[in-house]
Amino acid sequence: MAHGSGGPRVVKYGTIREYVLNFEVVLADGTILWTGANTLKYASGYNLTQLLIGSEGTLGIITKMVLKLIPQPLHNVLMLASFSTNEDACAAVSSIFNVGITPSAVEFMERKGMEWVIENDQIHFNLNPDAAAFLLIEVDGTNMDMLFNDCETINTALEKYKCLEVLFADSATQKDEFWKIRRTMAVSVKSNSIYKEEDTVVPRAELPKLIAGIKEIGLKYGFDSICYGHAGDGNLHVNILKGNMSDHAWQHDLKKGIVELFQLTVKLGGTISGEHGIGLVQKEYMHIKYSEIHLNLMRGIKKVFDPNGILNPDKIF
Amino acid sequence: MAHGSGGPRVVKYGTIREYVLNFEVVLADGTILWTGANTLKYASGYNLTQLLIGSEGTLGIITKMVLKLIPQPLHNVLMLASFSTNEDACAAVSSIFNVGITPSAVEFMERKGMEWVIENDQIHFNLNPDAAAFLLIEVDGTNMDMLFNDCETINTALEKYKCLEVLFADSATQKDEFWKIRRTMAVSVKSNSIYKEEDTVVPRAELPKLIAGIKEIGLKYGFDSICYGHAGDGNLHVNILKGNMSDHAWQHDLKKGIVELFQLTVKLGGTISGEHGIGLVQKEYMHIKYSEIHLNLMRGIKKVFDPNGILNPDKIF
Repeated sequence: MAHGSGGPRVVKYGTIREYVLNFEVVLADGTILWTGANTLKYASGYNLTQLLIGSEGTLGIITKMVLKLIPQPLHNVLMLASFSTNEDACAAVSSIFNVGITPSAVEFMERKGMEWVIENDQIHFNLNPDAAAFLLIEVDGTNMDMLFNDCETINTALEKYKCLEVLFADSATQKDEFWKIRRTMAVSVKSNSIYKEEDTVVPRAELPKLIAGIKEIGLKYGFDSICYGHAGDGNLHVNILKGNMSDHAWQHDLKKGIVELFQLTVKLGGTISGEHGIGLVQKEYMHIKYSEIHLNLMRGIKKVFDPNGILNPDKIF
Repeated sequence: MAHGSGGPRVVKYGTIREYVLNFEVVLADGTILWTGANTLKYASGYNLTQLLIGSEGTLGIITKMVLKLIPQPLHNVLMLASFSTNEDACAAVSSIFNVGITPSAVEFMERKGMEWVIENDQIHFNLNPDAAAFLLIEVDGTNMDMLFNDCETINTALEKYKCLEVLFADSATQKDEFWKIRRTMAVSVKSNSIYKEEDTVVPRAELPKLIAGIKEIGLKYGFDSICYGHAGDGNLHVNILKGNMSDHAWQHDLKKGIVELFQLTVKLGGTISGEHGIGLVQKEYMHIKYSEIHLNLMRGIKKVFDPNGILNPDKIF
């Protein structure tokens, strides 16, 4: 989940939430307790383990965890597909799932992000001149023949979205190279521009509307952006670039654009953070997603666990 | 999750918890709200959706839900393996996962349960005379050759636990018959004896200790039991049979045995209910699993959501 790591591959394997069985946690008064049981199933009162996940240290300090493990997949195939528009690339994401394939990763990358990485890291890679956006698609499993079948099925699905070409990584080195492009994108953005990153997430099928909306809002408020991220999960990192914006616009006007961006994610059935969390920076946007009644339930839970507000104070709310 | 239905096949696909994205819920004061977002990822404050799962109607009334869907598997293979002891059957469960296979179901059944079903439902099925316990093992996927490979790998794993024989269901009818034996076991127990069912759950690797402990506790308190259930999840339903127990022993002494049973599940890293929940019947055993501090956290959450205690009152606590 580390920011800028290229993130987890969660499409096929689910989020961290699905792997955590039990936490040892230190409560506000110093009590140490285990939140649940080391079991796959649990129906014994409120699930404090699940409540603690994503609570950002505001309910207790997690000191140990018990995780579910799954077998390491034996093989994988990695493809890089290029598209002539952002919307086509985003629409193609759902089409892969709609033909019954669940890849281990589907990552979206805008052309400008690719260009900056290639330049910054001096990678030898020729981008298709007509490509505006890319999908990095990985399938994994125990049998190579089946994986190639899956890739053919995916290819056929992508064709409907004017896919320009699909490159297969033909060696471990090329796989590393493709993944490196994705993984270093945050670093390249950082070294090319002052930026702010928003962690938008929507239902997968709404990605075309999200990407179109991001660009419309950018035009309205005068910012450019580079989007990339875990499209298979409906999770796009929006890197808002300062570019030629004045310091005043960057500090003040941009906020209205971010509000509109989150209003859009919520309207599309999404939320204001998919994996990065709220902390200090995003808490002013919580009311976009949540009613006062909803926030009061969260504040009430906080008070039950931390009546004196000593655990990671001022975060989230 | 319905009691006596034979339950969900959750080994490979995870629990319901992993499929729920969002709830529409009616709160105690009549407010209607959605607990989360319709997204695979969610890191925007406390996850009320996950908190509501398993809360048994005590925090709010769930009126709608948004679920994640996965592709229907195309093929499956069903095997019935027999073992000469309960412990061998239970130990064999982990061995399947340890060779890298994740079946879609691994169900444990004691011989007496099988006999009662066969008698009750007049099923034509000859039990291996040396078999004390059975595992119903299902693998599923998109390719039959791979499934047969998986079955061979499983067979080799089972051999180490003195597996007597493995029967493959060779038709859809036989698959239905094997599943019917498992699914009607609760009904057969009910029609043969007064019984109490406990929903024990432990880490999968602890199943041999659990089954041995159940029988030891039975000897100590004078009860027989029939155990069956979702062994792949470490979840065994213990059907305690009244048999020749006096009404007094059944009403009073048995409780001490149940307390010991839950002390055992907790000692093994498990809990007092895997899927059935607490309700009214199990709430007196909550203190076996939870400290007063832990219970007070749960009670505090209850108060935040339902200050007047009008939602499913007196349940869980």
